[in-house]
Amino acid sequence: MELIFLGTGSGVPSKERNVSSLALTLLQEQNSIWLFDCGEATQHQILRTSIKPRKINKIFISHLHGDHLFGLPGLLSSRSFQGGDDLLTIYGPKGIKEYVETSLQLSGTHLTYSLEFVELSEGKLFEDEAFKVYCKKLHHGIPSYGFRIEEKDKLGELLVEKLKEKGISPGPIYQQIKNQETTVLPNGESVARVDFLGPDKKGRVISILGDTRYTENNSEFVSGSDVLVHEATFNHESEQLAEQYFHSTTTQAASLAKHSSVRKLVLTHISSRYQKKHYHDLIHEAKAIFPVTELAHDFFVMDISN
Amino acid sequence: MELIFLGTGSGVPSKERNVSSLALTLLQEQNSIWLFDCGEATQHQILRTSIKPRKINKIFISHLHGDHLFGLPGLLSSRSFQGGDDLLTIYGPKGIKEYVETSLQLSGTHLTYSLEFVELSEGKLFEDEAFKVYCKKLHHGIPSYGFRIEEKDKLGELLVEKLKEKGISPGPIYQQIKNQETTVLPNGESVARVDFLGPDKKGRVISILGDTRYTENNSEFVSGSDVLVHEATFNHESEQLAEQYFHSTTTQAASLAKHSSVRKLVLTHISSRYQKKHYHDLIHEAKAIFPVTELAHDFFVMDISN
Repeated sequence: MELIFLGTGSGVPSKERNVSSLALTLLQEQNSIWLFDCGEATQHQILRTSIKPRKINKIFISHLHGDHLFGLPGLLSSRSFQGGDDLLTIYGPKGIKEYVETSLQLSGTHLTYSLEFVELSEGKLFEDEAFKVYCKKLHHGIPSYGFRIEEKDKLGELLVEKLKEKGISPGPIYQQIKNQETTVLPNGESVARVDFLGPDKKGRVISILGDTRYTENNSEFVSGSDVLVHEATFNHESEQLAEQYFHSTTTQAASLAKHSSVRKLVLTHISSRYQKKHYHDLIHEAKAIFPVTELAHDFFVMDISN
Repeated sequence: MELIFLGTGSGVPSKERNVSSLALTLLQEQNSIWLFDCGEATQHQILRTSIKPRKINKIFISHLHGDHLFGLPGLLSSRSFQGGDDLLTIYGPKGIKEYVETSLQLSGTHLTYSLEFVELSEGKLFEDEAFKVYCKKLHHGIPSYGFRIEEKDKLGELLVEKLKEKGISPGPIYQQIKNQETTVLPNGESVARVDFLGPDKKGRVISILGDTRYTENNSEFVSGSDVLVHEATFNHESEQLAEQYFHSTTTQAASLAKHSSVRKLVLTHISSRYQKKHYHDLIHEAKAIFPVTELAHDFFVMDISN
């Protein structure tokens, strides 16, 4: 499970940062990739990574501002051109379906796969075998949403020593014991899985917020996340600008991370007014409040270990 | 007057070629830039040139396929963000207005300037002081158009020696004589401009065709062009594929150039199936038919001298 930052700028692309997009790779977990936002030229950024568009089976659009949206029709077309045939689900605010369908229809684009649209509303967005995804409305100029991805807990490690003590020798039977609630041994005896497993492996939690003003209301939603991805369009001293344009500062994002007991914070959606020479200050002022902070850049990859 | 090739690929972007866009700079002529097609990430390509989006005052969309269109909403937004306030006119096939207005409205984009739409139809598209632009329907899977840009002839050079023989000494009076049909000299005598000018400077003609199958019907439309920009999606031997997908080959474009007595041919819209190692063959087979041929690449600049 990795986060691959494809675009970490805000508003308009610059030479250094593209507009917003973030991939969550779930290749080991379910051989798929989820995409969060799809600013213009996201497909161009993807060309410079190992991401295969046909593996992307869910796209979440936090809000409909162009810098989070205008790359979507092109990516959908290219996924088709490259032979994608699996269903693709697009989660987005009201209007997402009209935007995509109008773009595809007027451009005469016929996809090789089915598209499904889910309009965002607060609460549980979906649940599958391995994940639950929740959605919360944030505080922006137009409806903007955050996502909380909860991986379900997984079974603990098999207690090999205990199995051996019981006289069960290593072999394919070990996998059966782990896979089934009860297993009948060759000698006819039944063993219950629960007796031979260590504690559950805690699932990971990732929170990815769209554009938002700082509000303590977001704290409960992101609490306990292994990683919180938060916008930091402005630096600390530009708090008034952040307020005016419905965005957050570095230190506001760090405060939320601190009050929400997250493990790591990643700042993204950095205004193009800041260049390389400013990054030290941006990260420094956030770390003063929440030490485990990273400032994302395009193609920054974060491995999310258990 | 320059052509700046911003995207010279076809269908989908590759690392080497972006999807279609071509700028015609008219900075000396009228301090403006015209854009022909606007595939996704055209604004990103522009970041790597000296083009200022606010100078773009006309955009011509040859047809609505995504690789010629999907960069338009982003470019319009960025032009606004960067303080453009001059009217922008978009010429495109039926549907262009709905596409742009839907994209801007759903993304909550408010432009700082006025937009005007002109739906393409065959014939003279417009005429201003310096140019006439004509439009012709081509032969593609959806309505696709070509453009013929005719610069009007300009006044010839002032015949300085003849003015001196007449006893008129060099000075601001020379500019007056050129600017006005008749000028009254300080001694009260009238001189007619026509008597002191060399032959008219012939205006340049540039023909830029959108995606099209080869057809001799296009010959008259492009005849005598100083530059013909023509798609060459496929190589000579892939003529059947070109036919099937409503595109042209290198040699078909060269044949059109030859039969239309153009001065120079530029091939663009090159399929990503061709890489650097194939370019020699592509250009060679076209030059065998029409020697003054160039194979465009992204950021290729062609100066169009008189």
